[in-house]
Amino acid sequence: MATLLQDLIRIIPDPERIITENIDRKYLSDQLGRKQGHADALIFAVSTEEVSGVLRYAWKHAIAVTPRGAGTNLVGSTVPQKGGIILDLSRMNRILELDEDTFTVTVEPGILLRDLQAYVEARGLFYPPDPGEKEASIGGNISTNAGGMRAVKYGVTRDYVRGLELVTADGTVMTVGTKNVKDTTGLPLKHLIIGAEGTLAVITKCILRLIPKPETTVSVLIPYPDLKTGIGSVIRFLRADADPVAVEFMERSVVRLGEAYAGVKYPDGPGAAGKGKRAESYILLSFDGSRSEVEQKVERVRRLAFENGSLDYLPLWDPKQAAEIWAVRGALVKAVEAVSEQEPIDLVVPIDKSEEFIRFVNDLSARTGMQMISFGHAGDGNVHLCVVRGDRDEETWERELDANLSELYSRTYEIGGLISGEHGLGISKRKYFFKEADPANVDWMNRIKDALDPKHILNDRISYIR
Amino acid sequence: MATLLQDLIRIIPDPERIITENIDRKYLSDQLGRKQGHADALIFAVSTEEVSGVLRYAWKHAIAVTPRGAGTNLVGSTVPQKGGIILDLSRMNRILELDEDTFTVTVEPGILLRDLQAYVEARGLFYPPDPGEKEASIGGNISTNAGGMRAVKYGVTRDYVRGLELVTADGTVMTVGTKNVKDTTGLPLKHLIIGAEGTLAVITKCILRLIPKPETTVSVLIPYPDLKTGIGSVIRFLRADADPVAVEFMERSVVRLGEAYAGVKYPDGPGAAGKGKRAESYILLSFDGSRSEVEQKVERVRRLAFENGSLDYLPLWDPKQAAEIWAVRGALVKAVEAVSEQEPIDLVVPIDKSEEFIRFVNDLSARTGMQMISFGHAGDGNVHLCVVRGDRDEETWERELDANLSELYSRTYEIGGLISGEHGLGISKRKYFFKEADPANVDWMNRIKDALDPKHILNDRISYIR
Repeated sequence: MATLLQDLIRIIPDPERIITENIDRKYLSDQLGRKQGHADALIFAVSTEEVSGVLRYAWKHAIAVTPRGAGTNLVGSTVPQKGGIILDLSRMNRILELDEDTFTVTVEPGILLRDLQAYVEARGLFYPPDPGEKEASIGGNISTNAGGMRAVKYGVTRDYVRGLELVTADGTVMTVGTKNVKDTTGLPLKHLIIGAEGTLAVITKCILRLIPKPETTVSVLIPYPDLKTGIGSVIRFLRADADPVAVEFMERSVVRLGEAYAGVKYPDGPGAAGKGKRAESYILLSFDGSRSEVEQKVERVRRLAFENGSLDYLPLWDPKQAAEIWAVRGALVKAVEAVSEQEPIDLVVPIDKSEEFIRFVNDLSARTGMQMISFGHAGDGNVHLCVVRGDRDEETWERELDANLSELYSRTYEIGGLISGEHGLGISKRKYFFKEADPANVDWMNRIKDALDPKHILNDRISYIR
Repeated sequence: MATLLQDLIRIIPDPERIITENIDRKYLSDQLGRKQGHADALIFAVSTEEVSGVLRYAWKHAIAVTPRGAGTNLVGSTVPQKGGIILDLSRMNRILELDEDTFTVTVEPGILLRDLQAYVEARGLFYPPDPGEKEASIGGNISTNAGGMRAVKYGVTRDYVRGLELVTADGTVMTVGTKNVKDTTGLPLKHLIIGAEGTLAVITKCILRLIPKPETTVSVLIPYPDLKTGIGSVIRFLRADADPVAVEFMERSVVRLGEAYAGVKYPDGPGAAGKGKRAESYILLSFDGSRSEVEQKVERVRRLAFENGSLDYLPLWDPKQAAEIWAVRGALVKAVEAVSEQEPIDLVVPIDKSEEFIRFVNDLSARTGMQMISFGHAGDGNVHLCVVRGDRDEETWERELDANLSELYSRTYEIGGLISGEHGLGISKRKYFFKEADPANVDWMNRIKDALDPKHILNDRISYIR
């Protein structure tokens, strides 16, 4: 590795930013830390020129490169499987320009979502994508087309990427997209990069679209006697043009875990409707807009909720109370992980199939004895599942997990769903994707990869690679 | 051609749907009819199987195929330049499914925008994309990622395409996208097809996203003493979170043409603000939502308009009056064409550069003597220009048009703009695109074309082809 180090020092002038020995294990894995890869060097790049230099070198010598930001992914996307270079972009985290006339902010890819949101909101602007993990970097959000809570009203990361500066596999620097709103000028290269999980190019600059910050946001918690009634009413809310920002569902059993972890108690007694039943599921909604618009929406949905079987209807006008209620939703994954190792799933089904699918999950869980905790985005069919290891030994866990995932994804595709709504495929979902996806789709993905990275040096262990 | 005809009859069982002699000139051109191509056969396909059969045959024999829908494009996209087969999809115009639970409608690509909009609106649903040409087919709208009036609030066609059935160059039938809202499951193939101008695959089925139909829509006409004041106020409206659906600008001189053609008169006298000036430009806005939301937005913008130099503020509560005012905007291109041949331009600039760009256009027009009529989407920087031929002879017109377009596009790129916001490149914009675009972008486009249509049979005269 002495030669590699000598070569890299010519590209990265600061030797402290090149690690070739005793690479910290966190750089060889993802957020979960279960899967470990190996690498010959870890580089902390600080400029587009450095990224380009590293890729020109890697291209020439056909060395694998694994780009990474904050490393918060859950599917092994940042596990270097072929050795070579880990290209860390987390120090490229500056805000380069706020352009209030075109409603854009230009940032480096390593900036954390949390920091971007805080920066623009302090200036009366708003970056709507809101995936649960606020410590994720924007480059990673773009590479997975991250979705999150507010997707029902605002869409996903793709909808807020105006332009990208990229470095291609051979080190060429190029820009795709612009500050313009519309674009039918040649093939939509920008859109091919969003969600490509770093397999086609390294993102070095991001022009993001902003909107004015909504004046008010209010949440409403709605308890239901069962899951079917709860999820069933969501389609009615959506049809009523009440324009909710987020629509989450949680079963009582799942809420119990979050309550214990977050130290908060959800109301679950006999509701205002006087039906004398206890809540077995919850829908948690939010609305935004001007104060009077929000009040109208809250009232419109109140009527619909009671017409469609809710036990109560609890607008959370007090921001502190709203934060507590959301804290339970936010704590669910961590609450599960505090008890046991788990496999996170983020499959997606057509929204009218959510309830049927959750019932299938509950049945599967009862049948196979594998605990599965489901919750998620009822407004867009994005179902989050924690498949819980419990006290299984390694071999049993892997075998039973595989059997359960095969059944889950098989049913997902039967009802028109997809393996991933926002986490990506990484290495964890690769096998199931190959099993379920149309081979013609996989063929096109491979042809595009071959065309744009013919030496397969970029993140070359992702899903659609042969 | 006897052999070709015999071969095609085996694929298309109805001989009346295969034309090999005296092909109507309209099928050899675009909406403007100026550029004429040539072809060996015109086929009216009625099913995916037929499209697949034609492409398998064309692929085997390396015959060029030019797909077309309603043929309303303005840039030569449907001009067959290499002979071969014209594949007309206009008879594949059925609505296959309305799925109110997933808010989707599945249609064949030949359905006209007008018919789709009427169908869903009659059922309380709404398909927001609204390009000016309502007789365009949805397949064409998707292939150009058509934008139109409502893009400011609702985005463009891309934002409403959930899934597509495609036939690839070799005749393979495949689906990209689904009814699901979120998708990070492999490379985003669907997004590569939207806006690809039919160069990568033929669209045979479209799953489109719908939203609830807004309760109310109201327009407002705002006269200004000059263009700068008018366009300058638009960014303030956008910042105020008034959420306009459409924001159009028109200069007085342009409105005059539309008034004469549509038989409608715009108010232009001294306004309510009593400033005693005549209107030299107009901003035409619309808002939608519940009645009370719309009323609030109208009032919020009223204050901003007067604060920012408007001469008056005219909410068009009477739908008949609103329709008349919009009729002038809608008639502008036809009003110009009634006088002279014209070259339609749909370039796009960052929204804060619109006014500077229009001034440049007016100066260029004065300097070169080539009349240029500008109007367009002030809310998204999409500037429509009619470059007017007047009484120039063919040779002079072509030479002077080329010189003017070169200057226009050169300035467009200098200020960060793009050649096309919604019409596409076709053959008309090809030359200027090559001159202005980054060669690295063009290289990627070519690589993708080579990878997915290696024999270059599909629409092989589009922009990025070498």
